[in-house]
Amino acid sequence: MRATLLYGAGDVRVENVPDPKLIEPTDALLTVSRACICGSDLWPYKLSEPIPTGRRMGHEAIGVVQDVGSSVRTIKRGDVVVMPFAFSDGTCDFCHEGLHTSCVHGGFFGTVEVPGAQAEALRVPLADGTLVALPSRADDARMASLLSLSDVMGTGHHAARAAKVARGKSAAVVGDGAVGLCAVIAARRLSAERIIIMGHHPDRIALAKEFGATDIVRERGEEGVARVRELTAGFGVHSVLECVGTEEAMLTAIGIARAGGAIGRVGVPHYPAIPASERLFFNNLTVSGGPAPVRAYIGELLPDVLDGKIQPGRVFDRIIELDEVPDGYRAMNEREAIKVMVKP
Amino acid sequence: MRATLLYGAGDVRVENVPDPKLIEPTDALLTVSRACICGSDLWPYKLSEPIPTGRRMGHEAIGVVQDVGSSVRTIKRGDVVVMPFAFSDGTCDFCHEGLHTSCVHGGFFGTVEVPGAQAEALRVPLADGTLVALPSRADDARMASLLSLSDVMGTGHHAARAAKVARGKSAAVVGDGAVGLCAVIAARRLSAERIIIMGHHPDRIALAKEFGATDIVRERGEEGVARVRELTAGFGVHSVLECVGTEEAMLTAIGIARAGGAIGRVGVPHYPAIPASERLFFNNLTVSGGPAPVRAYIGELLPDVLDGKIQPGRVFDRIIELDEVPDGYRAMNEREAIKVMVKP
Repeated sequence: MRATLLYGAGDVRVENVPDPKLIEPTDALLTVSRACICGSDLWPYKLSEPIPTGRRMGHEAIGVVQDVGSSVRTIKRGDVVVMPFAFSDGTCDFCHEGLHTSCVHGGFFGTVEVPGAQAEALRVPLADGTLVALPSRADDARMASLLSLSDVMGTGHHAARAAKVARGKSAAVVGDGAVGLCAVIAARRLSAERIIIMGHHPDRIALAKEFGATDIVRERGEEGVARVRELTAGFGVHSVLECVGTEEAMLTAIGIARAGGAIGRVGVPHYPAIPASERLFFNNLTVSGGPAPVRAYIGELLPDVLDGKIQPGRVFDRIIELDEVPDGYRAMNEREAIKVMVKP
Repeated sequence: MRATLLYGAGDVRVENVPDPKLIEPTDALLTVSRACICGSDLWPYKLSEPIPTGRRMGHEAIGVVQDVGSSVRTIKRGDVVVMPFAFSDGTCDFCHEGLHTSCVHGGFFGTVEVPGAQAEALRVPLADGTLVALPSRADDARMASLLSLSDVMGTGHHAARAAKVARGKSAAVVGDGAVGLCAVIAARRLSAERIIIMGHHPDRIALAKEFGATDIVRERGEEGVARVRELTAGFGVHSVLECVGTEEAMLTAIGIARAGGAIGRVGVPHYPAIPASERLFFNNLTVSGGPAPVRAYIGELLPDVLDGKIQPGRVFDRIIELDEVPDGYRAMNEREAIKVMVKP
């Protein structure tokens, strides 16, 4: 079959690889119907050391179950399923607490060890605890939004939860990438009164407004901080949804947070330490967040997607075939596309 | 009158100063019955640059109201009051939210600008929003515990709240100073199932056990982290109450926190950035805390002190007169005393 491999920075190739096989009795085999390129894929695309054997990329998918191992109980051949970006057993303490990304037997797709979903097919470990079978209402028109439940919408929702978004409170989203846009949806869904998005790409800002952003701040750095404070009577916002992962974005987040407020960070941090420790302290700010337990959130978000109440699938502005994946990376990296969907 | 001034590192003097006077109509004048030396006073005691005009130290007190300004309504002459370490108007948004340490008109006692409580008397700004009058049940036997409500007990409670201590969960307290010991009381009061204290001073550890600590970890650094993990099936604790303020203590806190857990830090941070950003992220840890809004907590804690359910006053193991304050600093700095009470 065909699959995507990253051999180092800027070096993405689609190649023939052996077909996946069931290994453990808890496995499922998935034919990939839809996959994505993720903002987090751009970090290794930009920075990876050479990987001589290649890394099989992709961690978001909707697929059809082709086969299951002998001990799989809840997932069966023919099911159309959402595959979260992390696999999890569904039975450990962390899974029971809703923190599937810390599952004691879990892990992440698209690593050097676990082949990814930018491929025709893949093996899914711990199928019962990982996959969510979609109801037959999941028609093709909803497919993009359902696909977003595998990562980007759940991640935006996690930012909102970690930032304690609540009815009547103010929120700001740092970053206008696909996760930032889903964070706007999440903040709106959780009834934030005011939703400021910080970003400067006209197409993304336009979408953010449709998703519920009430204010746009195009300035960056200190100017951006000053502008958000100006919009909030000098105090800053209750909730900051940090959807970038750079130190600059985190400094902005800290600068615009209201005393007693919370910062939910979901951009994989590419900085060794959280800056402005004293400012965080003297303002009693909370910093939270991490890899979103999207498996836990699907139950909450799926009905809203099926009912059309939220349409996170609109963040996909380019659909490509598998062999076009290298160009998809380029397009996302150059901000030519917000988010790329792959139809193998 | 006599008051304590810090002129630089190691240079604490008790001197004659002008008597305080009412300045604003919202002021009260307090005769100090009891004051304290705080762990946070030791930072300037160790590190302060020379201050030619001196800094009037002390931010914790119980006192008797001698006089009030013309617009003071709830506090009257003769009241015995607790003075929180921060003053606050009691009417702004932050005070209404219970975050008095971010009051828009507030500030801190014992700074270069606002004279402190290690003195015979002091001026209290915003008396209505700051002071809490004690009921007549507040007898002398309870005085030490009531005094602790001005800072150290409220600060321990804040660590517990920020660390999300809850019934049935595990907690660890980093630091066996007076705040750490009060944090043990707070964790017990909020029904933590297991309370590990990290410290190595025998007298303090003994008190921690009486306050409800279930496990003692004497090791520090990586050894201490390994020991706490050993005690918690390898996972770490749900809540970490960081009561020191050094980078080493924070690294320990991060190392012993269970995935999805929370760190409440109340030691004034003497490090520019919160370390281990990636570990915090990948474990979905929450970092919270700051200057405790002790004014907000007095209502909750006072009944338990009056009923004798908690006895935070036991952290005071030395009582001195005002002229002995310089030696009190020395004794606390050399860990000869846990916490020093001053009777002017």
